[in-house]
Amino acid sequence: MDMTSAIIALAVALVMGIATIGPALGQGTAAAKAMEGIARQPEVAGELRTTMILALAFMESLTIYGLLIAFMLLFKM
Amino acid sequence: MDMTSAIIALAVALVMGIATIGPALGQGTAAAKAMEGIARQPEVAGELRTTMILALAFMESLTIYGLLIAFMLLFKM
Amino acid sequence: MDMTSAIIALAVALVMGIATIGPALGQGTAAAKAMEGIARQPEVAGELRTTMILALAFMESLTIYGLLIAFMLLFKM
Amino acid sequence: MDMTSAIIALAVALVMGIATIGPALGQGTAAAKAMEGIARQPEVAGELRTTMILALAFMESLTIYGLLIAFMLLFKM
Amino acid sequence: MDMTSAIIALAVALVMGIATIGPALGQGTAAAKAMEGIARQPEVAGELRTTMILALAFMESLTIYGLLIAFMLLFKM
Amino acid sequence: MDMTSAIIALAVALVMGIATIGPALGQGTAAAKAMEGIARQPEVAGELRTTMILALAFMESLTIYGLLIAFMLLFKM
Amino acid sequence: MDMTSAIIALAVALVMGIATIGPALGQGTAAAKAMEGIARQPEVAGELRTTMILALAFMESLTIYGLLIAFMLLFKM
Amino acid sequence: MDMTSAIIALAVALVMGIATIGPALGQGTAAAKAMEGIARQPEVAGELRTTMILALAFMESLTIYGLLIAFMLLFKM
Amino acid sequence: MDMTSAIIALAVALVMGIATIGPALGQGTAAAKAMEGIARQPEVAGELRTTMILALAFMESLTIYGLLIAFMLLFKM
Amino acid sequence: MDMTSAIIALAVALVMGIATIGPALGQGTAAAKAMEGIARQPEVAGELRTTMILALAFMESLTIYGLLIAFMLLFKM
Amino acid sequence: MDMTSAIIALAVALVMGIATIGPALGQGTAAAKAMEGIARQPEVAGELRTTMILALAFMESLTIYGLLIAFMLLFKM
Amino acid sequence: MDMTSAIIALAVALVMGIATIGPALGQGTAAAKAMEGIARQPEVAGELRTTMILALAFMESLTIYGLLIAFMLLFKM
Amino acid sequence: MDMTSAIIALAVALVMGIATIGPALGQGTAAAKAMEGIARQPEVAGELRTTMILALAFMESLTIYGLLIAFMLLFKM
Amino acid sequence: MDMTSAIIALAVALVMGIATIGPALGQGTAAAKAMEGIARQPEVAGELRTTMILALAFMESLTIYGLLIAFMLLFKM
Repeated sequence: MDMTSAIIALAVALVMGIATIGPALGQGTAAAKAMEGIARQPEVAGELRTTMILALAFMESLTIYGLLIAFMLLFKM
Repeated sequence: MDMTSAIIALAVALVMGIATIGPALGQGTAAAKAMEGIARQPEVAGELRTTMILALAFMESLTIYGLLIAFMLLFKM
Repeated sequence: MDMTSAIIALAVALVMGIATIGPALGQGTAAAKAMEGIARQPEVAGELRTTMILALAFMESLTIYGLLIAFMLLFKM
Repeated sequence: MDMTSAIIALAVALVMGIATIGPALGQGTAAAKAMEGIARQPEVAGELRTTMILALAFMESLTIYGLLIAFMLLFKM
Repeated sequence: MDMTSAIIALAVALVMGIATIGPALGQGTAAAKAMEGIARQPEVAGELRTTMILALAFMESLTIYGLLIAFMLLFKM
Repeated sequence: MDMTSAIIALAVALVMGIATIGPALGQGTAAAKAMEGIARQPEVAGELRTTMILALAFMESLTIYGLLIAFMLLFKM
Repeated sequence: MDMTSAIIALAVALVMGIATIGPALGQGTAAAKAMEGIARQPEVAGELRTTMILALAFMESLTIYGLLIAFMLLFKM
Repeated sequence: MDMTSAIIALAVALVMGIATIGPALGQGTAAAKAMEGIARQPEVAGELRTTMILALAFMESLTIYGLLIAFMLLFKM
Repeated sequence: MDMTSAIIALAVALVMGIATIGPALGQGTAAAKAMEGIARQPEVAGELRTTMILALAFMESLTIYGLLIAFMLLFKM
Repeated sequence: MDMTSAIIALAVALVMGIATIGPALGQGTAAAKAMEGIARQPEVAGELRTTMILALAFMESLTIYGLLIAFMLLFKM
Repeated sequence: MDMTSAIIALAVALVMGIATIGPALGQGTAAAKAMEGIARQPEVAGELRTTMILALAFMESLTIYGLLIAFMLLFKM
Repeated sequence: MDMTSAIIALAVALVMGIATIGPALGQGTAAAKAMEGIARQPEVAGELRTTMILALAFMESLTIYGLLIAFMLLFKM
Repeated sequence: MDMTSAIIALAVALVMGIATIGPALGQGTAAAKAMEGIARQPEVAGELRTTMILALAFMESLTIYGLLIAFMLLFKM
Repeated sequence: MDMTSAIIALAVALVMGIATIGPALGQGTAAAKAMEGIARQPEVAGELRTTMILALAFMESLTIYGLLIAFMLLFKM
């Protein structure tokens, strides 16, 4: 294995690591408000959970893009 | 594979990683308020969800631009 | 491909990555308040959505400038 | 293309990238308050939208200065 | 063991370390609001705990992606 | 074109980029409060808009100083 | 002992150090709200403590992943 | 033109760029409160505007010092 | 003693230093809320103190992991 | 002109640039509260303006110290 | 004394310096809330002071670990 | 003039620049509260102004220490 | 005096400098709340001042550890 | 004067500069609350001022330690 692969390994680590920070914080904020809403209006709990999963999926997709790039770089090592 | 490709790999990782931070935080803020709104006014839940998806799509597009640039750089490796 | 192109690739990644942070956070803040407004005054929902799209477009344009510069640099590689 | 052009490319990326952060955050704050205002006082919605566009244009101009410098550096490459 | 492996070790450490920051903060925010909700509406405690575990699992998955990449890099050392 | 010009290009990018961050954030804060004021006291809207433009101009001038220095450096390249 | 081992030692230190920041802050936030809840609704203290331990365990697991990677790197030194 | 001048160009860019951040944020805070005050007490609008211009001038002077140093360095290039 | 040991010493310092930041801040937040709770509901002081010690122990354990790694690296010097 | 002077130019830029950040933010905070006070108690406007100018002068003096050092270094170039 | 000892001295400084930041901020937060509690409920002052000392001791221990590592490194110089 | 003097110039700039940040922010906070107090209790304005000047002097002294060190280093150039 | 001593001097400066940041901020927070408490409940002023001095002493001790390490390193120069 | 002295000068600047940040911010927070307290309870102004001076002295002492180290290093140049 040569030095080029080692630098690509750093790139893989960088993209995967950074790509989890934003989505995780965003999901935390969204989920927190969803649970606050359920506690305030238990009768719309189902509606809120559906919306929460929709929003979490949107943010999860951002990390998936990072994971995709990480794999594409990994296969080039 | 040469050193030039390795530096391009770093560039790919950089653009994809950074391009998820802002949109994810923005989506989290927007989704949080949408769910707070649904809990406060359950009768406009549909309206709010439509607006939320519209706003999330706007922010998702910013990451898509980053993904596009990442792919264009990747094909140059 | 030479080292010069690799450094330009870093420049492309830098401009596209950084240019998504600010607009995404700004759009998140604006969209959040729009949805808070819809939940508080459902009768002006249309008005608020129009204003929100106008504001989001303003901020989207900032990332578009970054994308434009990224493409112009990319065609020089 | 020589190394000098590559460093100028980095400069172009730097100015365009950084010049979107501040204005975008500022526009987000201003637009958010405009929409909060419309929801609280729907009868001054027109007035608020005019003021908002005026303020957004002021901040947009800051990024335009950055874009101008970016183009002037780009034509020197 | 050669220098290349040492740099990959740094990459492994980077991806695993960074990938815990965001999810942990997000989980903390979500769990905090869940417990605030249980204290305010003890009768929906079950509902809230289910939603909390769902949300925590979403965020846990982001770290798992990082762990996955860390293992794949580790096996290349 | 020599290396010296490239470093001056970096200086130009640095001064123009950084000089937009502060003023943009400041303008955003000021414009936000102006619009909050208009929504609360529509009868002083004109007064507030005048004061807002005055304040925005003060902050715009700070970026103009940066632009001025950027041009002076640019003409030395 | 050679220089490669020294760099792996840095990697071990990096992953273990960073992997404690996020979970500790998250656990602090969650535990704080649990105790606020107990003080407000002493009759659900048992329920809250169970939920708190569940949430703390989720976050503890993130650090455990880091510890696992740290040990795997340590055994390669 | 020699390398020494290039480093002085960086110094010029540094002092002018950094010297706009603080004053702009300070002016934004002060102007925001002035407009909040006008909206709350329209009858002291004149008094507030005078005080605001006085305060903005104090902060503008800080950037002027930076501009002064920037020009003195520029004339040494 | 050789240079390798010196770099391991840096690793030991890094892991022990960083591993105290998060847990200490988390313990501070948790302990603060516990004392706020005792002042508000003195009759559940015992319950709160037990929960606080439990939570502090969880966070203390994160630093202990760091201490463990520090010792293991120290014995390799 | 030699390299030593160029490094002193960097020192001049550094001290003048950094010395404007703190005082400007401090002046902004103080001036903001002064104007809030005038809006709330118009009858003590004179008293508040005097105190504000006194406080601003204290903070201005900190930047003046930086300016003094900048000039002393400048005369050594 | 050789260069290796100098690097270990840097390690000692690093661990001791960083290990005071978190615990001090945590102790400040905890002590602040303890005194707020004493002012609100003077009759549980004893109880609060005991809990505060317990919590401060927990956080003090984190710095003690850092001090311990610092001494162990110091004796290796 | 030699390179040693240039590095001392950097040291002078560093100590003077950094030593203005903290005191200026602290003075701003203290002065802001003093003026808030005057607006709320005009009859203790004298008392508050005396205390404010005392506190500002305490913080000013911190910058004076930095200025003193800056001069002592300057005389060694 | 040799280069090794110079690096130890940097270590001494680092440990003493960093070791004042946290304790000072913590002491400020604790002292602020103590004075808020005295203003709200003047009759427990003695109790609060005792607790405050106890807490300040705890935090002072953290800086003392740093001072101790600084002296021990200083005597090795 | 040799390069070693120059590095010690940097150390002196570092310790004195950093040692003013924390104490100044802490003193600002403490003094702010003291003045808020005087405005709310003018009859305990004396008590509050005594406590404030006591607290400011504690924090001043932290900077004095830094000043002491700075002088000891300065005498070694």
